[in-house]
Amino acid sequence: MINNKLPISLSNRHLHLKKEHIDLLFGLDYELTKMKDLSQPGQYAAMEKVDLVGRKGVIKGVRVLGPARNKTQVEISKTDSFVLGIETPVRDSGDLDGSAGLKIIGPKGEVVLEDGVILAARHIHMHTEDAKRFGVTDKQVVRIKTSGERAIIFENVLVRVNPSYSLEMHVDVDEGNAALINNYDLVELIK
Amino acid sequence: MINNKLPISLSNRHLHLKKEHIDLLFGLDYELTKMKDLSQPGQYAAMEKVDLVGRKGVIKGVRVLGPARNKTQVEISKTDSFVLGIETPVRDSGDLDGSAGLKIIGPKGEVVLEDGVILAARHIHMHTEDAKRFGVTDKQVVRIKTSGERAIIFENVLVRVNPSYSLEMHVDVDEGNAALINNYDLVELIK
Repeated sequence: MINNKLPISLSNRHLHLKKEHIDLLFGLDYELTKMKDLSQPGQYAAMEKVDLVGRKGVIKGVRVLGPARNKTQVEISKTDSFVLGIETPVRDSGDLDGSAGLKIIGPKGEVVLEDGVILAARHIHMHTEDAKRFGVTDKQVVRIKTSGERAIIFENVLVRVNPSYSLEMHVDVDEGNAALINNYDLVELIK
Repeated sequence: MINNKLPISLSNRHLHLKKEHIDLLFGLDYELTKMKDLSQPGQYAAMEKVDLVGRKGVIKGVRVLGPARNKTQVEISKTDSFVLGIETPVRDSGDLDGSAGLKIIGPKGEVVLEDGVILAARHIHMHTEDAKRFGVTDKQVVRIKTSGERAIIFENVLVRVNPSYSLEMHVDVDEGNAALINNYDLVELIK
């Protein structure tokens, strides 16, 4: 392959809410307000923010992403989990059974989550055409090499292929800062 | 080599002070109080803490390490540098010219540092005998592989060999959290 590079971006802490939780936090039949589109088609950062409350600490002003999902999912970093005082497992998006819980506080009410809080496993979104070009398939695990003085090779990177996806690797803030990554840096896929 | 493993540990934000700065922050001829010995012989965590003040934010209660050094050196993470609002370069210990500055506040006074603030480059301390066993020399650059679900290979790891050193790799908190490292985990040296 001539070009095995793809863009990477850092996901700061954020959450996806199901409709019932939007109602409880922001008011009945409340609609999220789009602030800006995200790189994955249809996904957006909303104007709305909430506070996360753990056993040990609070993180204020955490961004809600839209649109509403079937399950509420809170994605934080290991650093955040120390601040909150909650044991948070590494999980793929949507794999929430037995994950961590916490309390969410919104302007109109609170939600106590039994689970739904995860450290998002690093992953690559790929359009079907990108997957062909890279010679990989959905759910394949690859390695990704970054560059620069704090270069890192990330092992165990999950490839997710879908015709609705746009090519991009996502890491959390700890991973991004460890490698001194800036959004849209190019990284190298190693099979 | 049969055993290419060594222990790793996370360095949280901390600082080393020169005598003049100890005087300014804690009082004339003040002596640091040892709280506990660190793994490197002669080095210790002191009881004393200070506040770090940057352009954008403050980090309170940062641990002083002893004994006093010839130059004051503040070691923070990239995450910390965002909180403080200072551009902080990756540097080896002691290589401080043109590094970042900030204000240190102690119980008896303040110090404005023009430079001395760094992101410590990841490195391995090795006793001379360890270096022989690993087949590496002082200042050699190696790679280190961690294990677990968030396994990482750290590139550009500096080996520092000295008969006064105890075998240990040091990374900062961002790097440790990115790989979900616990202190004293074993990692693998790759030449």
